[in-house]
Amino acid sequence: MAVYTHLTADEIGDFLDDYGVGALRSAKGIAEGVSNSNWLVETEQDGAARRFILTVFETRTEAADLPFFLALLDHLSAAGQPVPRTIHTREGALMRKVRAKPAALIEFLPGISIDEPDEKQAHAVGVALAQLHHAAADFGQARSSSLPLGRCIAMLRDHADRFDAIDPRLAQIIPDCGEALHDRWPAGLPKGTIHADLFPDNVLFVNDMVTGLIDFYFACTGELAFDLAVLHAAWSFGLADNAFRPAIGTALLRGYESRRALSPQERATLPVLAQGACLRFVATRVEDWFATPAEGLVRRKDPMQFADRLAFYAQAGDAPFIL
Amino acid sequence: MAVYTHLTADEIGDFLDDYGVGALRSAKGIAEGVSNSNWLVETEQDGAARRFILTVFETRTEAADLPFFLALLDHLSAAGQPVPRTIHTREGALMRKVRAKPAALIEFLPGISIDEPDEKQAHAVGVALAQLHHAAADFGQARSSSLPLGRCIAMLRDHADRFDAIDPRLAQIIPDCGEALHDRWPAGLPKGTIHADLFPDNVLFVNDMVTGLIDFYFACTGELAFDLAVLHAAWSFGLADNAFRPAIGTALLRGYESRRALSPQERATLPVLAQGACLRFVATRVEDWFATPAEGLVRRKDPMQFADRLAFYAQAGDAPFIL
Repeated sequence: MAVYTHLTADEIGDFLDDYGVGALRSAKGIAEGVSNSNWLVETEQDGAARRFILTVFETRTEAADLPFFLALLDHLSAAGQPVPRTIHTREGALMRKVRAKPAALIEFLPGISIDEPDEKQAHAVGVALAQLHHAAADFGQARSSSLPLGRCIAMLRDHADRFDAIDPRLAQIIPDCGEALHDRWPAGLPKGTIHADLFPDNVLFVNDMVTGLIDFYFACTGELAFDLAVLHAAWSFGLADNAFRPAIGTALLRGYESRRALSPQERATLPVLAQGACLRFVATRVEDWFATPAEGLVRRKDPMQFADRLAFYAQAGDAPFIL
Repeated sequence: MAVYTHLTADEIGDFLDDYGVGALRSAKGIAEGVSNSNWLVETEQDGAARRFILTVFETRTEAADLPFFLALLDHLSAAGQPVPRTIHTREGALMRKVRAKPAALIEFLPGISIDEPDEKQAHAVGVALAQLHHAAADFGQARSSSLPLGRCIAMLRDHADRFDAIDPRLAQIIPDCGEALHDRWPAGLPKGTIHADLFPDNVLFVNDMVTGLIDFYFACTGELAFDLAVLHAAWSFGLADNAFRPAIGTALLRGYESRRALSPQERATLPVLAQGACLRFVATRVEDWFATPAEGLVRRKDPMQFADRLAFYAQAGDAPFIL
């Protein structure tokens, strides 16, 4: 949540010149995305205002993967999905450089992120995820996850001797840093292109309608049911008490299955996949925890939020997934 | 440059309900302002998109002064100045509370801030400042500066024993922390309501036209010529080399005087006023320097930028102000 690269108005104007989207009228640095710099840019073209998001990709996003992300946005929006279109330069390029960093211009989508979704909104996002999976089925590119389970386990092992500095419960919940999940991880599940990070932050609504699915910078080729497990883990717990909200979880699954039925194996493995999803967010948050000074203005996300959800899934078994 | 208060979409929606400006369609936290939290908010009303800036005032801005700032915006925009209008609640209030903090909704103005203005833009902002002074002449409220010269000197004295930690030249430039300026400060200059912080950041342009004067949170009753001195000190030096750019300084003064002629006393005292303006920015930056951890993500502004400008004005005498 920061703007790392400072661009002058002239630099933004020069950047836009390559796109033929009209004259720059406003540019506001926005506090969005964890590791990129973003501007909400307004231009004027033929008397009409147009809005875009300009993103400068900082170190965390690997430049080599950007063509995958940007082409995926193109593919999905062409298929009618509520995903921001990548604007191409006059020469047809998906990206260009600014201050020696890769940068892209994408469509601005209206809508707001809901902190605590209701059942209707949860159902709608379940529907949206299944439709995304269908629309991505004929996307021609592939990308391996940068955070597969093995990598998350390794990240946790690197910090295991300092778990107590976060919370003594952490070592009780994952004494093996998640190794046991690795043995139980299912093989042979249907794969495809997945969003892999569909938190409430990344879904825009106008009332109960999904108007935007954004922030595809973790998208990869993976198990479709894992994407649903991420959604379940990210949406079905109260913000204040972190308690499981069964009605929300059920609405997510029902919405998803209204467009794409889960196979018996997918359904049976959801408890393990959900634990794997939680482990991933514990791992990245543990790493950020030790990388971020406690007094910094950047809010550290609490690893225990997802550690407790992992413990919940480990104990609850099939129960949260029975409709 | 941060968003300190996190508001949920529901909270922003509830906030807007009090204003009757349509339904919330988008809200992006923007990296603007040093000590407030700001959102660029979009609503839909009668099929049309409307845009606003929602500001939550954090500790630095004294709540007691907000009615002054917000009423001033109202007064100036009613007088046709390019200043954002304060949106009133349905009950006519200029502000309300969010999370126990004062908050206000103001008009969004198009335009971009120029980092290195050219002569045309400098002339235009000189004109805009003089027009602002005229339009504010019949504003009925008064507010003392929170950073009068005496206060700046005191702030510097508090840190004088640590000046070398910033730069050994600092103590050479202001061995007396600015006390000598105090003795030379002119009395009897024409006073009025001044912006007092008209940095390039706070001026929006569309091409060479000033479309917005923003961030009035240092506005106060003071010497009109001091406002011009702030403008001169903030605009007339190269960003890269911090060297005086005489053509820009001249364009600022010519623009200003095309709308409001300086009295002989005002002109004669500009060198002292400009040093006072520089001293103020040195003082606030020195204070921020020692209050902000060096490793923090918040960029500390360099006190030496304005210390060197102060030294320039002290040596140059009348020269920069002779047209």
